[in-house]
Amino acid sequence: MVYLTRVEHFNAAHQLFNPRWSKQKNETVFGKCANENWHGHNYELYVTIKGEPDPDTGFVLDVKKLSEIIKEHILEKVDHLNLNEDVDFMKGKMCSTENLAIAIWEQLEQFLPAAVQLHVVKLYETPSIYVEYFGR
Amino acid sequence: MVYLTRVEHFNAAHQLFNPRWSKQKNETVFGKCANENWHGHNYELYVTIKGEPDPDTGFVLDVKKLSEIIKEHILEKVDHLNLNEDVDFMKGKMCSTENLAIAIWEQLEQFLPAAVQLHVVKLYETPSIYVEYFGR
Amino acid sequence: MVYLTRVEHFNAAHQLFNPRWSKQKNETVFGKCANENWHGHNYELYVTIKGEPDPDTGFVLDVKKLSEIIKEHILEKVDHLNLNEDVDFMKGKMCSTENLAIAIWEQLEQFLPAAVQLHVVKLYETPSIYVEYFGR
Amino acid sequence: MVYLTRVEHFNAAHQLFNPRWSKQKNETVFGKCANENWHGHNYELYVTIKGEPDPDTGFVLDVKKLSEIIKEHILEKVDHLNLNEDVDFMKGKMCSTENLAIAIWEQLEQFLPAAVQLHVVKLYETPSIYVEYFGR
Amino acid sequence: MVYLTRVEHFNAAHQLFNPRWSKQKNETVFGKCANENWHGHNYELYVTIKGEPDPDTGFVLDVKKLSEIIKEHILEKVDHLNLNEDVDFMKGKMCSTENLAIAIWEQLEQFLPAAVQLHVVKLYETPSIYVEYFGR
Amino acid sequence: MVYLTRVEHFNAAHQLFNPRWSKQKNETVFGKCANENWHGHNYELYVTIKGEPDPDTGFVLDVKKLSEIIKEHILEKVDHLNLNEDVDFMKGKMCSTENLAIAIWEQLEQFLPAAVQLHVVKLYETPSIYVEYFGR
Repeated sequence: MVYLTRVEHFNAAHQLFNPRWSKQKNETVFGKCANENWHGHNYELYVTIKGEPDPDTGFVLDVKKLSEIIKEHILEKVDHLNLNEDVDFMKGKMCSTENLAIAIWEQLEQFLPAAVQLHVVKLYETPSIYVEYFGR
Repeated sequence: MVYLTRVEHFNAAHQLFNPRWSKQKNETVFGKCANENWHGHNYELYVTIKGEPDPDTGFVLDVKKLSEIIKEHILEKVDHLNLNEDVDFMKGKMCSTENLAIAIWEQLEQFLPAAVQLHVVKLYETPSIYVEYFGR
Repeated sequence: MVYLTRVEHFNAAHQLFNPRWSKQKNETVFGKCANENWHGHNYELYVTIKGEPDPDTGFVLDVKKLSEIIKEHILEKVDHLNLNEDVDFMKGKMCSTENLAIAIWEQLEQFLPAAVQLHVVKLYETPSIYVEYFGR
Repeated sequence: MVYLTRVEHFNAAHQLFNPRWSKQKNETVFGKCANENWHGHNYELYVTIKGEPDPDTGFVLDVKKLSEIIKEHILEKVDHLNLNEDVDFMKGKMCSTENLAIAIWEQLEQFLPAAVQLHVVKLYETPSIYVEYFGR
Repeated sequence: MVYLTRVEHFNAAHQLFNPRWSKQKNETVFGKCANENWHGHNYELYVTIKGEPDPDTGFVLDVKKLSEIIKEHILEKVDHLNLNEDVDFMKGKMCSTENLAIAIWEQLEQFLPAAVQLHVVKLYETPSIYVEYFGR
Repeated sequence: MVYLTRVEHFNAAHQLFNPRWSKQKNETVFGKCANENWHGHNYELYVTIKGEPDPDTGFVLDVKKLSEIIKEHILEKVDHLNLNEDVDFMKGKMCSTENLAIAIWEQLEQFLPAAVQLHVVKLYETPSIYVEYFGR
């Protein structure tokens, strides 16, 4: 079993705001992250899959294919967009990095070839903060 | 003459949109950067000053002092905010990285001690794109 | 279960020196790291916790809270200090990166909220050397 | 149990080309990676071992010793060379990053001291692509 | 005047070999870099242009346009190729990073819009070695 | 004219302490940097030289030669040492990054071949603080 990781990037606006709470409680809990005019990040996305290398290619999966799957099913839906407003798979969810990583896992899992398994989605919000989700 | 650089970070939302143009022309020119719901970045800001080291301290300027000046006059005004909507010194300007670097220079220049000169403001929008402004 | 990591930095002096050995044996085993006048590093500390995201916030733990815990219980005790001389939780221990990572784990573990678990302490001594400790 | 990682670098030429396939099929499958005149990379190699810190040194293993083992048994055989043509342990194998990581594991495993175990070989082909091999 | 930099990457094989010298002299002078079976690098290319920001866009030049010019005139000709064998603008030249940076400058200069000037080509051969060329 | 840069690293202990001042004034001015038991850093040193590429090699200077000069005249004297106590060329100077960069310039300048000129010494104290010295 070998693990293969592809790193991709996207830029997006977001906001941490719980609609069941008052504006004041949101500001108390989320501070500047609750700014009603949004803020944003350069997210760095690491997608790791695992599998046996194919004897003919030496590849777990052609990394260009993995990159295309990530671009089609994730980057097209989040890059240069507003995570709270524009992204169908984040609708109705708190837009934390934790929830975004889970949602990216759930999206990607459906589109990977049967020969490989998704191992971990790692998502940097800033160079000092990242989350990892290994599935349930 | 020695050059001293301090690196700081901020996260912000923005949009490239020229109000004198139609929505369609904005989309043609700015593509995804014109998204009406905003997108955002982790900006990385390099501020370089120059001067003679003080014989008593060996410092061109105490780098903690430089950091405080940047925090007070720049980061407080842009971090976790919307560059188009929330930042007084960007009002009425196209919100490009070029214009943001010029505006940061103009802000900082006023608040530096007389013994040093601002040399360059370097601003990364993404790890692959940066601008530098050396003043006029 | 989601894993959340916060990266922090500190600068410190240290020395590798076993007091049960002669000065010569220390120099043979530890080379330049045994320098009696100390040397030092910019340590980079990655603290990873795990837990379920809170439905109200989307957070495993507010990363600002995690950062404050690390600052109060670790950085305040090691930053800009001498690891051998100034740090109570390293007293009487060989001051290797391995032992420092274990000691940081033991410190942090006591102060994390009950809802999360400490997963790993990862500590870079230089950009080419790091250790990880997952607890016992 | 503590995990210790050493990072090393090497530069090499390689080519993805399956000799059982036509030139055309190789180009279809491997694209530019099949270029008959080779291309190359700055590989970044992370070797992680695990063990108990020695009470006398605080070390899982002296990291200088780990570096020497990697240099003698891996870097000497791959650095500034052609992975397909010049490296005995890659002979007859598809020269993918997956297979190179497996081969590096098999080389290193033989030469590590008995007190430690090899945990993972992580190999970056580019800053956006890496593989990990944890043994079988 | 504002300076705008775009960072791009390419992978290539190369060799340092002076055909007017004996094989032995090449090995003496260039060491492992003279390997007849080639070696290779992940080159990192920084292209900096300068100009006045356009009042309508805030751009010195649309960075996507700059990226396209670099891709069409440089990356298409060097990426995943052999710098000595496959690249017309390096024919008959010693394939050092210095000469490659000069050649990239000479290529790019012809294709930039009149409103901007090429300022510097910066080329990393490894993370520890880079050259800069500002034109003659 | 082409500019060639070599990046090297060293680890050292140091202290900011002006012997003409009281202990209290040192603590007021230098804060934690005045710790009497020292602290330390992983310094990153960029040395840039300039010259014309040699027609036979394509090199401004063989970068291995540049690296050897830096190692012999700088790293041997500062790496894993105490900048205040152990380094002859820092004796009697305030041990700031500014003064260290100037001293490194003065050391290196004497030992470079006549065909090249030293252009700049750039010294990172931490990833967020660096100084540059271009000579007088």
